[in-house]
Amino acid sequence: MVEAQTIERLKRHVELSNEEALQNELNSMHSADIAEVFDNITPEERLKYFEYLNLEKAADLLEELTPQMQVELLGAIDEEKSSKIISQMPHDSLADFLGDLSDEEVNTYLNRLPRRLSSQIRELLSYPEDTAGGIMTTEYLYVYENMTVEETFTYIRSKAETNIDFYYMYVVDKEDHLLGVLSLRSLLSSPLNAKVGSIMTTDVFKVTATDEQEYVADSLIKYGYLALPVVDEFNRLKGIVTWDDAHYVNEEETTEEIYASSGISTGLVDEDEILTGKIRLAIRARAPWLFITLLGAFGAVNVANHFEGILHQLPVIAIFIPLLIGLGGNIGTQSVTLMVRGLSTGQVSMNSALHHIFREFKVGLIIGLIFGILVMLVTWNWKNNVVLGGVVGIAMAANMAIATILGTASPFILKRIGVDPAIASGPFIATAIDIVGLAVYFILVTMSLRFLI
Amino acid sequence: MVEAQTIERLKRHVELSNEEALQNELNSMHSADIAEVFDNITPEERLKYFEYLNLEKAADLLEELTPQMQVELLGAIDEEKSSKIISQMPHDSLADFLGDLSDEEVNTYLNRLPRRLSSQIRELLSYPEDTAGGIMTTEYLYVYENMTVEETFTYIRSKAETNIDFYYMYVVDKEDHLLGVLSLRSLLSSPLNAKVGSIMTTDVFKVTATDEQEYVADSLIKYGYLALPVVDEFNRLKGIVTWDDAHYVNEEETTEEIYASSGISTGLVDEDEILTGKIRLAIRARAPWLFITLLGAFGAVNVANHFEGILHQLPVIAIFIPLLIGLGGNIGTQSVTLMVRGLSTGQVSMNSALHHIFREFKVGLIIGLIFGILVMLVTWNWKNNVVLGGVVGIAMAANMAIATILGTASPFILKRIGVDPAIASGPFIATAIDIVGLAVYFILVTMSLRFLI
Repeated sequence: MVEAQTIERLKRHVELSNEEALQNELNSMHSADIAEVFDNITPEERLKYFEYLNLEKAADLLEELTPQMQVELLGAIDEEKSSKIISQMPHDSLADFLGDLSDEEVNTYLNRLPRRLSSQIRELLSYPEDTAGGIMTTEYLYVYENMTVEETFTYIRSKAETNIDFYYMYVVDKEDHLLGVLSLRSLLSSPLNAKVGSIMTTDVFKVTATDEQEYVADSLIKYGYLALPVVDEFNRLKGIVTWDDAHYVNEEETTEEIYASSGISTGLVDEDEILTGKIRLAIRARAPWLFITLLGAFGAVNVANHFEGILHQLPVIAIFIPLLIGLGGNIGTQSVTLMVRGLSTGQVSMNSALHHIFREFKVGLIIGLIFGILVMLVTWNWKNNVVLGGVVGIAMAANMAIATILGTASPFILKRIGVDPAIASGPFIATAIDIVGLAVYFILVTMSLRFLI
Repeated sequence: MVEAQTIERLKRHVELSNEEALQNELNSMHSADIAEVFDNITPEERLKYFEYLNLEKAADLLEELTPQMQVELLGAIDEEKSSKIISQMPHDSLADFLGDLSDEEVNTYLNRLPRRLSSQIRELLSYPEDTAGGIMTTEYLYVYENMTVEETFTYIRSKAETNIDFYYMYVVDKEDHLLGVLSLRSLLSSPLNAKVGSIMTTDVFKVTATDEQEYVADSLIKYGYLALPVVDEFNRLKGIVTWDDAHYVNEEETTEEIYASSGISTGLVDEDEILTGKIRLAIRARAPWLFITLLGAFGAVNVANHFEGILHQLPVIAIFIPLLIGLGGNIGTQSVTLMVRGLSTGQVSMNSALHHIFREFKVGLIIGLIFGILVMLVTWNWKNNVVLGGVVGIAMAANMAIATILGTASPFILKRIGVDPAIASGPFIATAIDIVGLAVYFILVTMSLRFLI
């Protein structure tokens, strides 16, 4: 959404060595916009621009960049400046950045930070990155139950200068045990001398640091909270997860689901690596399901081989194979897509499996009949053989109807037996439809062989 | 995430006619959890439970339900109660609900509401549903520039009892022109007698009511705001779009993208209708790209037909067709998926097209060589024909490498010529790979024919 003009103007400032203009322009831009510019320029230009940013802007920007760019930029500037910049980053972003580095590099960076900050970051780094602890931040507002509303306002005011966002106010005791939560609303509508403990809500939805990030993100979104408190096994408040963290977890999940639908597995390889990491990792993520498809394809080859005699008598039937398995695969994939996405968003439930299978079968049958008639007419005309047209047309209709049933049923079956429907449905369905489709076609040909030759 | 026990307990309350327990249990549940229960019970049970909810809970719940359930429930209870319930719904949810009804029904509902509310809702209904105006709510906090900080606190306090969420405080003049925004932070750190006009931020990111919802959602998420103000063409503040609205727009967009990848078009048919609406609509959404695939498949049939002579001389080659186009299609689809998702999340940019094409080609070539050797060995052994094994193996390797190039390049090409890569890549790639793959295979067979027979 950054205009091309902006990029041009920045480049012109560099060409004309107009340092002041470059500095002003960059520092007045939103960090998300600078990140967009950084995606479209060379590493040398990035470094040049980065050096003109003030510390706060540089910290904001780093949060928006890819891990590669973070390392590239922080590695190129001097130690003191890089320490100053990273100490201004939100704690969760800093922990994410360090999480991708070697232990040695992590120590180098952390040793340059103030003691208190570095120990907070070390604690964040101790949680696996796909848990509540791994995505939470340690910057949040908390008050003690025996504070008054007036003291609370004074406290908030003292924090107003810092970078902490106000979402909710958490109430803890001296040992950091989470007791309740205060909304701005209750704070404002209570007398100044009221105790926090008497106006807080004690029914707090909270998550544990070891909870999976998907559960945390889904809960936050489901209940519409701006943030969720994260506690340890003793109910001690450790951090908060905010709505934008939930958004990124959700986006990551969606990417994994989309990848899975074409047989790209994110189980062993981080999804970022597949697109930009080592070729070896991309192959490891992609080959397994291709291999299963290969086994399935040999199944289809076997079916065709079984009817080799027919192919000898009537080689022309071979030319329709791509048509039949192509269309069957396509409409079957549509059904898989609808069910997998529906199961993921909650629009489709296991209870409604039969309803959907029947509905998709109707869709497949109607489209199959229309396409079957079309294909029959074209084939009849082209090959001047009405029986051949009929066989290909009927095979088409049957294939499309069967494909929708297989495509709709397989996600439910896989889910029932505890296999992720997203990852398994793609290759499973591609193979099953090939095999069933070919079998139906060859059986139809065999049955009508005496009219065909 | 609602436990099966909860559902069982609710059912038992009904069986034992334990009305008080049912009422208490239901009203103490979060509306999002009740909605989950509603997904798994019969319409009769839903109505029964709904009648036990207090007005506020019923309004909260309606917001979470599908349009069908909303109509089902509100249509079954008496007019007065339904008016009371809908007047407590957030304005944007109410407008969404009414937006799916006929004009006549809308009027019936609106005429029962207080005049001021019904005119606000009518205004929301006047915006197309996929614009900022269509997703915004008219419930927000605003103050005038000449108010003091103290007056502002009094105002917020007066609103504390209502349902309005505090995100930001918008500053307007007497004619509702948007002048600036106030954060809680600046409010708290300013003296009580300061004028709002002197402490507000005038650099406000705002959107226009007619802006597309995707742009609004993407901007909100990109810049990390909790809400964005929506103005009309004269800069008059009309409403706000909040982060959860952006989340739902984003989810809808993702669903459209996923549907598109298997050739399900959401251009003419609303994406909800495809899964649960009339069969006719599901067919209209699915048939167009299948038809284009059909045309493409006839292209593949034509290629095969062109080599019919070879099929006559050597029918055995036909049985490997499903293997070659199956695997080529699969690895090509993986490349398409990676590029389309990358373009959508911003991880892949048009500038890096060549980089990705080359990278994917390497992946395709390596996997192709491995699979090619495997297929060669299997075929050689099985058919006891080394040349046939070689031809099928080389065709396999070439096909997979070509498929990755086509799969990677097509999203970029389509985007460059202004076609949505998500919707067009699926059918385009399936067809192109079939045609190219078959051509390569038959040419290889033709070249080595004298060694094969």
